Amino acid sequence: MSLPPALIILFGTTGDLAQKKLYPALFALHQSGQLNPHTQILGIGRRDWQQSYYHEKIASSIRLSEPVPEDLLQSFTDRFTYYQMDITEHEAYPLLWQSMDDIERAGQTQGNRLYFLATAPDLFPLVSKQIGSRQNLHADSFRRLMIEKPFGQDLQSARSFNQELRSVFDENEIYRIDHYLGKEMLQNILILRFGNRLFEPAWNREHIDHIQISVLEPFGVEQRSGYYDRSGALRDMVQSHLLQLVALLTMNQPDSLQPDAVRDEKVRVLRKLRPFDRVSAARDVILAQYTTGSAMRAYRDERGIPEHSLTETYTAMQLWIDNERWQGVPIYIRTGKRLNQSVGKITIVFNQQDYLGMHNDRQANTLVIRIQPEEGIDLRFNIKKPGMTTEIEQARMNACQNCQRGAASPQAYEKLLHDALSGDLSLFTRWDEIEATWTLIDSIQSVRDELPLYYYPAGSQGPHAAERLISRDKKTWLDL
Amino acid sequence: MSLPPALIILFGTTGDLAQKKLYPALFALHQSGQLNPHTQILGIGRRDWQQSYYHEKIASSIRLSEPVPEDLLQSFTDRFTYYQMDITEHEAYPLLWQSMDDIERAGQTQGNRLYFLATAPDLFPLVSKQIGSRQNLHADSFRRLMIEKPFGQDLQSARSFNQELRSVFDENEIYRIDHYLGKEMLQNILILRFGNRLFEPAWNREHIDHIQISVLEPFGVEQRSGYYDRSGALRDMVQSHLLQLVALLTMNQPDSLQPDAVRDEKVRVLRKLRPFDRVSAARDVILAQYTTGSAMRAYRDERGIPEHSLTETYTAMQLWIDNERWQGVPIYIRTGKRLNQSVGKITIVFNQQDYLGMHNDRQANTLVIRIQPEEGIDLRFNIKKPGMTTEIEQARMNACQNCQRGAASPQAYEKLLHDALSGDLSLFTRWDEIEATWTLIDSIQSVRDELPLYYYPAGSQGPHAAERLISRDKKTWLDL
Repeated sequence: MSLPPALIILFGTTGDLAQKKLYPALFALHQSGQLNPHTQILGIGRRDWQQSYYHEKIASSIRLSEPVPEDLLQSFTDRFTYYQMDITEHEAYPLLWQSMDDIERAGQTQGNRLYFLATAPDLFPLVSKQIGSRQNLHADSFRRLMIEKPFGQDLQSARSFNQELRSVFDENEIYRIDHYLGKEMLQNILILRFGNRLFEPAWNREHIDHIQISVLEPFGVEQRSGYYDRSGALRDMVQSHLLQLVALLTMNQPDSLQPDAVRDEKVRVLRKLRPFDRVSAARDVILAQYTTGSAMRAYRDERGIPEHSLTETYTAMQLWIDNERWQGVPIYIRTGKRLNQSVGKITIVFNQQDYLGMHNDRQANTLVIRIQPEEGIDLRFNIKKPGMTTEIEQARMNACQNCQRGAASPQAYEKLLHDALSGDLSLFTRWDEIEATWTLIDSIQSVRDELPLYYYPAGSQGPHAAERLISRDKKTWLDL
Repeated sequence: MSLPPALIILFGTTGDLAQKKLYPALFALHQSGQLNPHTQILGIGRRDWQQSYYHEKIASSIRLSEPVPEDLLQSFTDRFTYYQMDITEHEAYPLLWQSMDDIERAGQTQGNRLYFLATAPDLFPLVSKQIGSRQNLHADSFRRLMIEKPFGQDLQSARSFNQELRSVFDENEIYRIDHYLGKEMLQNILILRFGNRLFEPAWNREHIDHIQISVLEPFGVEQRSGYYDRSGALRDMVQSHLLQLVALLTMNQPDSLQPDAVRDEKVRVLRKLRPFDRVSAARDVILAQYTTGSAMRAYRDERGIPEHSLTETYTAMQLWIDNERWQGVPIYIRTGKRLNQSVGKITIVFNQQDYLGMHNDRQANTLVIRIQPEEGIDLRFNIKKPGMTTEIEQARMNACQNCQRGAASPQAYEKLLHDALSGDLSLFTRWDEIEATWTLIDSIQSVRDELPLYYYPAGSQGPHAAERLISRDKKTWLDL
């Protein structure tokens, strides 16, 4: 099924996200024939680029990942028009509207407009206000706004930004991106949970001992030092990606797969996250920053980072959900940069089964959902040790999602652009989800001056404090 | 841990079971060092064999399966003494006792005696009565009787045989063999069910749609035509092996792993098997016999089979367990000879999960427990079809028990001889289990004159009637 035609207006077309993620994603849709032949992309940047240079930049970003036929690449870059402007200048917009109208007419995009904000976050309010003021020319066309994270810096700024957005856009026109939701295995969580009779009966406090979520990255802040130092791991990773994972893992079964039915249930459980106070934050939240290690420089020595920065590049915490289903089931999450591995995964640890007197800590059932780089599901369960014995040992069953058919899963942005063009809001976050997650983060930020900042060497497994956080409960971060 | 020494008295030492199963099993225990150095085997047969010929027969039966060092074989056959007698002659026994006493003294077997009845079944009562009359010489030695199936031909004959046995043996001295219980995967069923937190919450009528048990054999009656024609598949396979499987799959969790705790629970569920009556037998029981096919002769043309035999070589049936846990969950079982495959397996089909409107018959979760020739566990569950789609597809996770470590699982008889020597009754059937299973079989036999006998070609998948039995419920024998 081909997507409807549209004019995609890409703010921040010369930036990192566009080069690394959006061009390859759009190309994948082009290559697979899903991108409508009449779809055009208007790339907006401040730099003085020629059309041919722009096309060459796009082409290079595609060639980086795989060899592609030049004529296919040509037909792809032909969709792109570069438009130079300073988006902070109010006066510049009327000319942009004029150009958009021109392209629309020439390109038969049927008046559909998809705006994508890939600029620096502090420009989001300004730009969205401008484009929000502009209604479409055609009555039955769509107008949609894809907006990158972060959505605010705390609850207050998010709320005020949202009010501005909502003054010019309907909630259903706003596609708030959490690119984790575009990942194959996150889409799989609900199917795994609710599409299988086997798992759901055990998916509650009676049978689950605890949940672990780890998103560990080997790389540092890269080009984003300015943004990152104002955000830190709590805002950059926990408020968005990790709490979305928590919601998908713990939500109740929605009444349908309609986007709002799913998001209703996500919000319901996110609102049950127990906020931190002075005492619980000091006990259950770990903040840390990387120092030199493994021949890599310290965070404070990175370009663009203040030398006395107190920003956390790592955080771990113990979360609780105060509802009947999850009462008493701790959720341990951790995420950080410059670690000794690259992994995103969820581990569900089931209650120890005291098998008729044979008790052994290593024998709890575990279900591992691997998000990246591997995508798959991994189940550890107990069987009889083969041979003349009644001893029990753990066996592993495994299903690898991205090993199948030699085909790679679509990249998150490919899926998200696809869904935004087709009008499916399922994988985008609704305002009340944002509100619930900032509420939790704010409960930490409000007492963070009283929290210690731990340190860990770059390239290590992270701070010891994160080990203590879980080991005090006689558990351990599982490396399965 | 080495086994205690014993004198093993093997009735039927020249027979098929001894050659094919018992010598190799004893050899495996010898080879692995588990068989006590002082353990001696007295083989009893009617034929006029020399010791050297006897030893050579034993050695050949071992060499058949694998090349073994001759000195190891020598030390093994040295344990064996051939004893010629007609076991139907009452007067012959005093001389046997004398010989046993002699070997005991010379061999330092500490007075422990393990009798193994591997004769024709109709000799069981006579022989067991004789040996039961003979108490051990040593007060703290053990006396045990291993007895092959069949245990009776119906409830009445089983009961009367049992009364005879019990007049000379304690229940705890009687090791009734169901060699299926010695199989690796049958021992695994309880560990799988009760040693894993994940499976048990779903192991009931609320989550299980039905259970399938298939024990399909390519071979015919072989040397056992006389016995087989009097038994048929119902008595030979269902009363013993298949109903044991049913019990292991459906029993409640025992209080401990003590043999009697496990057997108490097995009996409890076996007694809840709904007996057949005239109407339900006609509806839910299929009996069939093989005719010529795939260049193989018909059952009635096999050597030793009466030309008008009405014995079933195949049976399939639908069973119900009348307790709260299993009410409404049909259990389909089938077993037969001369079929187009060799397989023993259990398939647990979970309820269809109507995943938010996406309903598909092929998407029920299934757990397959493979008993033979493969040993392993196989779980089918639903995941998202990889790629730009929300479709669901079935994935398979698999754990192969006998693929591990390149080591073959012990043969059933090796395990059973081991356990009998060490006094572990867990894998032997208690009288009340026998009683409960004969009760079910008798409920069919009492109306079998009214049941049709179907036919199927040798080498086929069995009678069509077995397909209809399950397809009328909109289910199918799963070939997973």
